[in-house]
Amino acid sequence: MSDVRMKGFARRTTVAQALAWLDGHLCILAEEVVPLEKAARRVLARTIVSSVNVPGFARGMMDGYAIRAADVQGASPYGPVVLRVIGRSLPGRPFQGVVESGTAVCIMTGAPLPAGADAVLPAELTENQQWIKGGGEIRAVGDVGPGKHVSGIGSDVAVGQEVLPAGRLLRPQDVGLLSSIGLADVPVVRCPRVRIVTTGDELLPAGARPAGYRIADSNGPMLQALVTRDGGLAELVGPVADQPEAILDAMRGPADVVLVSGGSSVGEEDCAPVLLRQHGQLAVHGIAMRPSSPTGMGILDGRLVFLLPGNPVSCLCAYDFFAGRAIRALGGRSVEWPYRRVRLPLARKIASHIGSVDYLRVRLIDGQVEPLAISGASILSSTTRADGFIILPENCEGLLPDAEVEVFLYDDLQAASRHVGR
Amino acid sequence: MSDVRMKGFARRTTVAQALAWLDGHLCILAEEVVPLEKAARRVLARTIVSSVNVPGFARGMMDGYAIRAADVQGASPYGPVVLRVIGRSLPGRPFQGVVESGTAVCIMTGAPLPAGADAVLPAELTENQQWIKGGGEIRAVGDVGPGKHVSGIGSDVAVGQEVLPAGRLLRPQDVGLLSSIGLADVPVVRCPRVRIVTTGDELLPAGARPAGYRIADSNGPMLQALVTRDGGLAELVGPVADQPEAILDAMRGPADVVLVSGGSSVGEEDCAPVLLRQHGQLAVHGIAMRPSSPTGMGILDGRLVFLLPGNPVSCLCAYDFFAGRAIRALGGRSVEWPYRRVRLPLARKIASHIGSVDYLRVRLIDGQVEPLAISGASILSSTTRADGFIILPENCEGLLPDAEVEVFLYDDLQAASRHVGR
Repeated sequence: MSDVRMKGFARRTTVAQALAWLDGHLCILAEEVVPLEKAARRVLARTIVSSVNVPGFARGMMDGYAIRAADVQGASPYGPVVLRVIGRSLPGRPFQGVVESGTAVCIMTGAPLPAGADAVLPAELTENQQWIKGGGEIRAVGDVGPGKHVSGIGSDVAVGQEVLPAGRLLRPQDVGLLSSIGLADVPVVRCPRVRIVTTGDELLPAGARPAGYRIADSNGPMLQALVTRDGGLAELVGPVADQPEAILDAMRGPADVVLVSGGSSVGEEDCAPVLLRQHGQLAVHGIAMRPSSPTGMGILDGRLVFLLPGNPVSCLCAYDFFAGRAIRALGGRSVEWPYRRVRLPLARKIASHIGSVDYLRVRLIDGQVEPLAISGASILSSTTRADGFIILPENCEGLLPDAEVEVFLYDDLQAASRHVGR
Repeated sequence: MSDVRMKGFARRTTVAQALAWLDGHLCILAEEVVPLEKAARRVLARTIVSSVNVPGFARGMMDGYAIRAADVQGASPYGPVVLRVIGRSLPGRPFQGVVESGTAVCIMTGAPLPAGADAVLPAELTENQQWIKGGGEIRAVGDVGPGKHVSGIGSDVAVGQEVLPAGRLLRPQDVGLLSSIGLADVPVVRCPRVRIVTTGDELLPAGARPAGYRIADSNGPMLQALVTRDGGLAELVGPVADQPEAILDAMRGPADVVLVSGGSSVGEEDCAPVLLRQHGQLAVHGIAMRPSSPTGMGILDGRLVFLLPGNPVSCLCAYDFFAGRAIRALGGRSVEWPYRRVRLPLARKIASHIGSVDYLRVRLIDGQVEPLAISGASILSSTTRADGFIILPENCEGLLPDAEVEVFLYDDLQAASRHVGR
């Protein structure tokens, strides 16, 4: 074990430099086609232009009577206008005749407006509804202008209209709209395939009961969940023993992005950086941040590789700073963190080291930001007890009480309410 | 067609009354067990108590030397202390002997602390590292106190500790933590099965090219995406023709919640409310809100049924007010809308009807809230052009320009950035 390798990194890349390298290697993956029912929360690969009008016919928007507006001009309870009902129009079952002056067709919301009619007189503006199949009279006691309560051809979507832009993260209503224009197959950005290689002789498989000097792999399932959150397709490989050939093999499976957890530093047992340097490019190794300084990035077989520290808090932090950014970008998503932000005052002083970006877990207590006391990089429970984290930039010596800070919240908008049903 | 049925609802339930009825019928579903890799974003059904210590052994937290702290007390570059290196401890491969006074064991981050040692002296505080397999000497040029750079037994999680509470929406790091305590199978709240029945003679299947007087079902795929967003398992049935037997059959398939889209009003062709009244309970029908007033709720075969208007904007709005709330609650999630909120000033005046809750689609332009001009309940594209919506309570006559309003944003935190890679 050489002196230099036991004493840590000779120099560290700044977070800004590391991000600059990374951003220079990001692109959006190619498109694939998915069926409509799988399209929500995918990213549109192309701008979608409608080839149809929606609706393709003029449509009544109220329950009432399709009429000629001129017929009922000035109608009122004191001067009603009598119209002869000649039929009805239902959704999908239009009236086939023509509305001549003096006649009306009973129409339901969403039904085609019959030829000859130019407006719908709502049922509320009629009296004496005695319509029997194909006959009877109504009295109009109010009037409507031409076009009233009618949705014209293409009023929702017109032929040739751009309905949704490339890059759109599809919302539920977007999927509905794509359905309405007849798009059964949706061109979306392919999801990045992410290979997660967890390494370490001390690791038991995820969820195994820890025993003796071995611990269960926690980074593997955590990274699976993070990758899924960020729109990637995660494949967990491992735990892999600390043997260079085994790790290299595991890194070389099919993927767009490779994450290696553990053995990312400069110690004798830290294989991954050496492998990446030997077989690919180790572009960044050692980053001026706390935790996660033993993080590496590079290229192997043309694919981005992230070397994430084995300590779980460091792994989470390094994932969020670098790997998650890449996975989101490849999939066409925002590179920004998918965490909500709140600005709140600090409950107490925080010290920070100049020269490194600090990731601090915090709790929100009575509207104030309380840094967690126990916060070692190996203490995963610090991230489950925390409500979120704050970032201190590298030029920050610390912050005073009451300083307003931006908190990134770990929780989700659907975080369970403890008040419902319990 | 009777007069009363053509003229709309005799009276409408208020939104508050409708929600009160609904909340009285919500409970959390039973638990099921899922493997760890499926646990993220599920809701914990029980508080989890650890049956193990993590770590189960004292662990070195730095690369360096496991020592007796007393040995190096006062060591400095001017008064180094020489220690004999008697072996090494690697993660999963502990040193089996005992650290006696005057000796040290080379230790890597995460490796078990050998017996006899009580601290780790970081490599940075040593000189003359000439450790060769099992031999050599180091010079300590700094000191550490007992326990320094050591993570004790149970320092992350202790036996008997409650690690995560019932009702927790599991985060990626939570899944990592559950893995670390050996929980391969996670008890979570079962996902509500939601049967989506879209009805209407005018409907073609989702994604079909509209033709003649028929339109493609847009509510079905939109509801599928909404249900999935809210943690439900969606099954789309339909489109079903406007025939009572067919609709009743479709409503009676296996589910925890049934959504019926279309035919929810009081017209002749509106079968669903009649069916629900005949075969179950139609508890709420007609709600004082715009759009979505022809919304119904009830119980059929012991299951919640939501009658959603066929107009797509009304369908979306009624889903969000009522059905989504129920689906989230059954699955143990927050009943609140999963939309981010921002407070911004109105760009212009808004008029509103007293006596109904209004759902208005808006755009955000230059930091101001601009109501959409085209916003009929049939215009689904109004919800894809909008950035979000605002809610005007029933006692609101309208709002003046510059009034600050709360906007619920449709988009997701991962909404694609148009600046990356394009």
